[in-house]
Amino acid sequence: MTSTARELADYLGCTTEGDAAARISGVAEPERAGAEDLIYVDAPMHVASAGKSAARCVIAPLGVALEGKTVLRSEKPKLAFARAADWLLRPPAIANGVHATAVVAPSAQLAPGVAIGPYAVIEDDVEIGAGCEIGAFCFLGRGAKLGERCRLYSRVTLYAGARLGRSVIIHSGAVIGSDGFGYVFGDGKQWKFPQVGEVEIGDDVEIGANATIDRGSLGRTEIARGVKLDNLVHVAHNVSIGEHTVVAAQTGISGSSAIGKNVMIGGQVGIADHCRLQDGAVVGAQAGIPTGKTIRGGQIVWGTPARPLEKFKAQYAWFARLPELAERLKRLEEYAFGRK
Amino acid sequence: MTSTARELADYLGCTTEGDAAARISGVAEPERAGAEDLIYVDAPMHVASAGKSAARCVIAPLGVALEGKTVLRSEKPKLAFARAADWLLRPPAIANGVHATAVVAPSAQLAPGVAIGPYAVIEDDVEIGAGCEIGAFCFLGRGAKLGERCRLYSRVTLYAGARLGRSVIIHSGAVIGSDGFGYVFGDGKQWKFPQVGEVEIGDDVEIGANATIDRGSLGRTEIARGVKLDNLVHVAHNVSIGEHTVVAAQTGISGSSAIGKNVMIGGQVGIADHCRLQDGAVVGAQAGIPTGKTIRGGQIVWGTPARPLEKFKAQYAWFARLPELAERLKRLEEYAFGRK
Amino acid sequence: MTSTARELADYLGCTTEGDAAARISGVAEPERAGAEDLIYVDAPMHVASAGKSAARCVIAPLGVALEGKTVLRSEKPKLAFARAADWLLRPPAIANGVHATAVVAPSAQLAPGVAIGPYAVIEDDVEIGAGCEIGAFCFLGRGAKLGERCRLYSRVTLYAGARLGRSVIIHSGAVIGSDGFGYVFGDGKQWKFPQVGEVEIGDDVEIGANATIDRGSLGRTEIARGVKLDNLVHVAHNVSIGEHTVVAAQTGISGSSAIGKNVMIGGQVGIADHCRLQDGAVVGAQAGIPTGKTIRGGQIVWGTPARPLEKFKAQYAWFARLPELAERLKRLEEYAFGRK
Repeated sequence: MTSTARELADYLGCTTEGDAAARISGVAEPERAGAEDLIYVDAPMHVASAGKSAARCVIAPLGVALEGKTVLRSEKPKLAFARAADWLLRPPAIANGVHATAVVAPSAQLAPGVAIGPYAVIEDDVEIGAGCEIGAFCFLGRGAKLGERCRLYSRVTLYAGARLGRSVIIHSGAVIGSDGFGYVFGDGKQWKFPQVGEVEIGDDVEIGANATIDRGSLGRTEIARGVKLDNLVHVAHNVSIGEHTVVAAQTGISGSSAIGKNVMIGGQVGIADHCRLQDGAVVGAQAGIPTGKTIRGGQIVWGTPARPLEKFKAQYAWFARLPELAERLKRLEEYAFGRK
Repeated sequence: MTSTARELADYLGCTTEGDAAARISGVAEPERAGAEDLIYVDAPMHVASAGKSAARCVIAPLGVALEGKTVLRSEKPKLAFARAADWLLRPPAIANGVHATAVVAPSAQLAPGVAIGPYAVIEDDVEIGAGCEIGAFCFLGRGAKLGERCRLYSRVTLYAGARLGRSVIIHSGAVIGSDGFGYVFGDGKQWKFPQVGEVEIGDDVEIGANATIDRGSLGRTEIARGVKLDNLVHVAHNVSIGEHTVVAAQTGISGSSAIGKNVMIGGQVGIADHCRLQDGAVVGAQAGIPTGKTIRGGQIVWGTPARPLEKFKAQYAWFARLPELAERLKRLEEYAFGRK
Repeated sequence: MTSTARELADYLGCTTEGDAAARISGVAEPERAGAEDLIYVDAPMHVASAGKSAARCVIAPLGVALEGKTVLRSEKPKLAFARAADWLLRPPAIANGVHATAVVAPSAQLAPGVAIGPYAVIEDDVEIGAGCEIGAFCFLGRGAKLGERCRLYSRVTLYAGARLGRSVIIHSGAVIGSDGFGYVFGDGKQWKFPQVGEVEIGDDVEIGANATIDRGSLGRTEIARGVKLDNLVHVAHNVSIGEHTVVAAQTGISGSSAIGKNVMIGGQVGIADHCRLQDGAVVGAQAGIPTGKTIRGGQIVWGTPARPLEKFKAQYAWFARLPELAERLKRLEEYAFGRK
């Protein structure tokens, strides 16, 4: 959509300076922006490129002078920019109407305005909420339930019974509700432990490309409202993840671990089974959290096995100086015991 | 199916106490069980919840009293429970009959009872054993061969010539038989080393969602009978994995490595090329095994580079105390050499 | 195709010894080769198996005697073998013609000789270059552009606007152009930062199964000519990768990192955001490169946080001897201060 600077500023709760009637129809980075694209400045180093940009409208903090621009003043320019983009841009269409090639079971229930792409397969008793867009080759297994306005890009698999809240975004290749990984060894072979539980994804969750989320074994795997999972993340059976927690790419969370709210987990982190990460914990990239471990609320941990960041830094600093420590130790031994 | 406690106990080789005629039709965890669901107890902490469960039948070890319940006595309650589930539950149907939209090459051979979901593509000379279920959007490349009773969930790719044994389960998004990763640098570019070998998956193997298994370059990639691979596992060209080995999520095994039987490999482990893991080795999560390394049979290894668990623990204990060691060293130096 | 030893030697720039008219129609490893398969020897340990092979023609370095064989002499036998395979073997057909079930938008432009498999979906304004083969279930989003002779195996997703150069190979399940992972926290929730940039893949790039490459947020993700990415690799928004760089399986590259030319990156490496790897850098498997770090050209780094290989080795050697160092320190303390 197109807006004026004033309309957008009103929506964002900003003040404007300059031509409040300037039109805004998109967002861009300064170097690639056109006249109607909105840009933002959140660091002094970006002021020059913003000044030279073709964009007429800039979100900038107080005190940043941008001559000739319409400035929307915000103390959190990046946040204001993200909110502006959310307001200005319609997400790309995934499907329009129900494509003739979609295989929709007669017992499936499609609310008004549901769009389904070519070759999607919707099995028996699936319920799809109003305004959902389902991409090509999506597979919605028997009894899956989707709230309103979900967006499934092409090639998403929901195993039977998976449940999604409202406004869930799932990227291509993600698999929700596959069997968990559990076996019991006996009589010379691995017996499959039953993987017949549930999987529930809350409102406003976004799940990256080729991520995998297993159903519960007997219980439930739960991803709460507002959680964001990056590409290739793995969530095992019976895991729960609290509201607004963010998990970067290629991280794996093992069975029955409970992740709190507003937790931030870096990329390639491994969380073993039965861990507890309390609200607001922060886990550095590639960290490893051993079985059953609790990370306290607000704690920042790093390394494998994960420990508080300050400890990790102190230990690693000495690790890097190990050859020096060994040399100093040798000198002391020579002093005390004589040369060997 | 539905059974009585006595019939199930006979199948499992258990004795029963209480009402042996009690009916059992499913499995559950104590908190969610209905009257006809089977539950199990394998730790004292679970006795109370089992006692309060609506389930009438419980598998429990000798010495655990559960008043009012029908108890099936087993020294390995979890194993018995897994075997009971295997006996009681029919796996969910993946397909029924051959869907009208499946594209099946005329030269493909389908044994009796094969079911193929919507939009599956079966190329020339594919052979599918009796009772296989092939999900929607599966792609079975030219000449692929599947033994009896395989279950491929939606969106599984078998490259041309891939061979599966009997009762293989493959989850959504897995790719079997893709080209290995091999190049030779020359004349300023990477030349692709030929990736024209084979891939063979044994009986009773289960492969997780979005896992990838490459074909051999010139030779063969082999996954033996009973192996279980979790989601997002990567198996490179010319790897062999022995019977009943278990590999947790996001682990990667590089080219030409040979993994023995009954090996247990944690999540996010990296195994470099040309390694040998002998039978019964155990590799802790996130461990890294360097090129060409042998892990002896039965050994438990941890860390990167992987070393025996006891050594790893001793080294890491001192690693955590490095700041203290450095302080003690400084005190000694001051004592010996005086303050600098 | 079939060639004589002489024709192949002329193409490779080799000399021949023995029967130059011997026919060659394939490549193999010595143990599995037929008479017309080409084999190669690049280490003394392989001479015996080459001698016993049924293959009549061998690529071998000067000085290696192979009686009764036709020998093509090369100082780089493996490179010559790869080039020979490239010349002899036609890659397997992915599709023939445009399958009747492919859904091709009227506005899509298909150059001559394009082949499209069953159930592929080609959206509006897609342009596909001459000789491309598009596998079953591929999804080419609105406006995607492919150069000549690209090969997309089954189930590849190109999000809208993705651009591929010539002779790009993409394996099954890969996703190109998905949204990057960027959010701004405010008002108690994560706001999606706009992910509306571009993704561009150069000529001769190969991308492994189930790999994921995100589009730029506002800018562009760029994979240059000749880059090779293994299975399950993750490339985040705004990353650039220079020519002929090779990235092994399960490695992740975070937002805005710039990787130079001819870089070699091992498996399961984690590269944080805003890193710079200069031309010719080498990163060992499972290494972790912290945010904003620069790795200089030609440097070999290892470990987490990554450091030069020699330093890493020295530090790790002492790490393994930490229990011994601690014991020696204790002895010194006893000597200096007396037993406690």
